[in-house]
Amino acid sequence: MSHPIIFDTDPGVDDAQAIAIALRHPEIDLLGLTTTYGNVDIETATHNALLLSELAGRDIPVAQGAAGPMVNPRHPAPAHIHGANGLGNIELPDVKGKKDPRNAAQFIVDTVNARPGEVTLVAVGPVGNLAAALQLDPALTEKVKRVVIMGGSIREGGNVTPVAEANMFNDPHAAQRVLNAGWPLTLVGLDVTHRCVLSQAHMQRIEAGQGELGKVLAGSYAFYREFYREFLGIDGCCPHDSCALAWLLRPELFTTAPGHLSVVTEGIAEGQTLFAPEGRGFIQDRWSQTPLAEVCLEVDGEAVVEWIADTLG
Amino acid sequence: MSHPIIFDTDPGVDDAQAIAIALRHPEIDLLGLTTTYGNVDIETATHNALLLSELAGRDIPVAQGAAGPMVNPRHPAPAHIHGANGLGNIELPDVKGKKDPRNAAQFIVDTVNARPGEVTLVAVGPVGNLAAALQLDPALTEKVKRVVIMGGSIREGGNVTPVAEANMFNDPHAAQRVLNAGWPLTLVGLDVTHRCVLSQAHMQRIEAGQGELGKVLAGSYAFYREFYREFLGIDGCCPHDSCALAWLLRPELFTTAPGHLSVVTEGIAEGQTLFAPEGRGFIQDRWSQTPLAEVCLEVDGEAVVEWIADTLG
Repeated sequence: MSHPIIFDTDPGVDDAQAIAIALRHPEIDLLGLTTTYGNVDIETATHNALLLSELAGRDIPVAQGAAGPMVNPRHPAPAHIHGANGLGNIELPDVKGKKDPRNAAQFIVDTVNARPGEVTLVAVGPVGNLAAALQLDPALTEKVKRVVIMGGSIREGGNVTPVAEANMFNDPHAAQRVLNAGWPLTLVGLDVTHRCVLSQAHMQRIEAGQGELGKVLAGSYAFYREFYREFLGIDGCCPHDSCALAWLLRPELFTTAPGHLSVVTEGIAEGQTLFAPEGRGFIQDRWSQTPLAEVCLEVDGEAVVEWIADTLG
Repeated sequence: MSHPIIFDTDPGVDDAQAIAIALRHPEIDLLGLTTTYGNVDIETATHNALLLSELAGRDIPVAQGAAGPMVNPRHPAPAHIHGANGLGNIELPDVKGKKDPRNAAQFIVDTVNARPGEVTLVAVGPVGNLAAALQLDPALTEKVKRVVIMGGSIREGGNVTPVAEANMFNDPHAAQRVLNAGWPLTLVGLDVTHRCVLSQAHMQRIEAGQGELGKVLAGSYAFYREFYREFLGIDGCCPHDSCALAWLLRPELFTTAPGHLSVVTEGIAEGQTLFAPEGRGFIQDRWSQTPLAEVCLEVDGEAVVEWIADTLG
C-alpha cells in the first residue's frame, strides 16, 4: 500500500533524516514538501527542502510557508542544536531548483482537494501551515485521510520548557487550532521519540546507503549528536521527525490511546499538550470536550531505529 | 530521633491513615493538627481531626484553618471519594474535645517560633494555612526545620485534571506562594503516591492493631477502595498522605531530585506543578528562578505500604 503524503517540515537535522525516508521509502508517495520556520528560518527551511530532494535525485514540489507564529513573537532558531544552516553547519552544495509558486497552505489545500480522502499530512515542525490551510478551507478536515503530527508531550515532560515540546511551544495557537480541528489525527510526541536513539552505527549504515544525501545526513548528524551528548548526556540522537513516518508505516511498533487534546496558549505552561484519555472523568469536563485524537504513549524504540536504518541503509 | 511536626490536613480517608501514623509512630512528636477544607468542608475536617485523636487516646491541639482558597472559588468536596463525612460515610462516635482557640496559621506561627529550627510542617491538603502563616510571619522560612508537602505531579499526570493534583488544584495561588517560599521543602506527589497501593490485607493488619481507631480506618478504607476500584481499576488505595510521613521517616525508600517548582494559577493547566531540574537548561530561564526544592520522583512503593502496615499493625 502506498501512502500519498505532504510532509510539512522545518529542516533541521532530524527533519532531513525523515525527508530522506519520505523520498526513499517505496510505500510513500511524496506529493510535496511544505516548509515552515522552527528549527531554522523559513528561507533556510525551503533551501534545505529543495537541496535534500535534489541530493536524492527527486523533483518534488517545495512550497514555502509560515515565517513565524500566528500570534506570538518568534523564538530564536536553535542554532546550537541544528546549526545555523539547519544541517549541522556542514558545507552544502548549491540548490538548482525553485520553490513552488504557491504558499504552503495553498499547496496543501490544492493537493488535498485534488485527491479527497487520499492524502495524509505529516507535520514535524510548528503547525502554522496546517492552521493556515484550515483557515482557507475548513472542510479539509473531511478531505484529508489523516494528519500525523510530531509534537507534544503527555507524560515525558518538555524539551524546551519543563512541560512543552518545541513544535507546540513555537506556535501554541496554531497547535490548538490543528490539534482540535476534528480531523483524524495522530500525535507522535516526546513520549515515544525519546525512547528512540539513533546511534553512530545506525548512521554509518545510512551514510553508506544514501550516496550524496548520505553525506549530508551523516555530517549533520555529527553536529546534532554533540548537542545530545553535551546537553542531554545521550550517545546518539532522537530521530523525532522520522518517528512520525515510522508510526504511519509501522504502527504496530507503537502503543496509542484515544483521547482529547488541549494546548496551553499562555502562562508558564505555554505550549504544553494536555491529554484527557477517552472516558476518564476529571473534576470538570472542560478537558474532554475537544475532538478525539490518537496519541502515541509507548513504542518499541529499538525497532523504530532499526526500521530507519533499514529503510535508508 | 524524634521529629516534632505540625500536621496540616483535610481528613479525608487517607488523611486519617496518616494522622494515625502521626499519633502512633514513636519517632513522631505530633505538636498539633491544623485543618483545612479540601477533601471535606472545614468544620468536618476539624471534627474528624478531633475525633481521630480521641480514638487514639491522645489530646492533641487541633487548630482550624482555611475554609476555602486564597483567590478562587472553592471546588465542591469530593464526597464520592471520601464520603460526605470524610470518613467513608461510616457512623462515627461523638467528639468530646474542643478545637484550639487560635486559627491554624496562628498556631503554626506560635508553635514554630517557640522551637525555632526544630519543627517540620507536614501538609497534605490544599496549602492555604501555610500561605496564611507566611503572611503573618514571613521569617518562618528561616525558622521551620523543613516543609513536607503531599501534592503535585511532575511526570505522572494529574488526578483531578489531566495535569493537576487535587491539593494544588484546590488552591493554586497558595501553592505558588508555599512552593516558592524558599524554605527547605520536599514535594511528595503523585509520581510516588501512585506507586503505593495499600491492599485489603494491609488494612486488616491495621484494623487489628488500632482498636477503636482501627475500626474507623478500616470502615472508611472500604468506601475509599470502592472509588479506586470503580474509577481507577485499582484493587486497594493509594495512601497519598501517609507517603509524606514515609518520606520524613524513611527517606531511603524514595528517589528525589533538586530543582525549581512553579505552579500554574490560571487556564487549562491550572494547579499543575512544573519542575525544572537543577542545572537543566530550557529555552528561557523563567522556570529556573524559583528557590530550589526537593521533589520525590520514584519510590519503593511496596516497602512504603509495608512500613505503613508495620507502623499501625
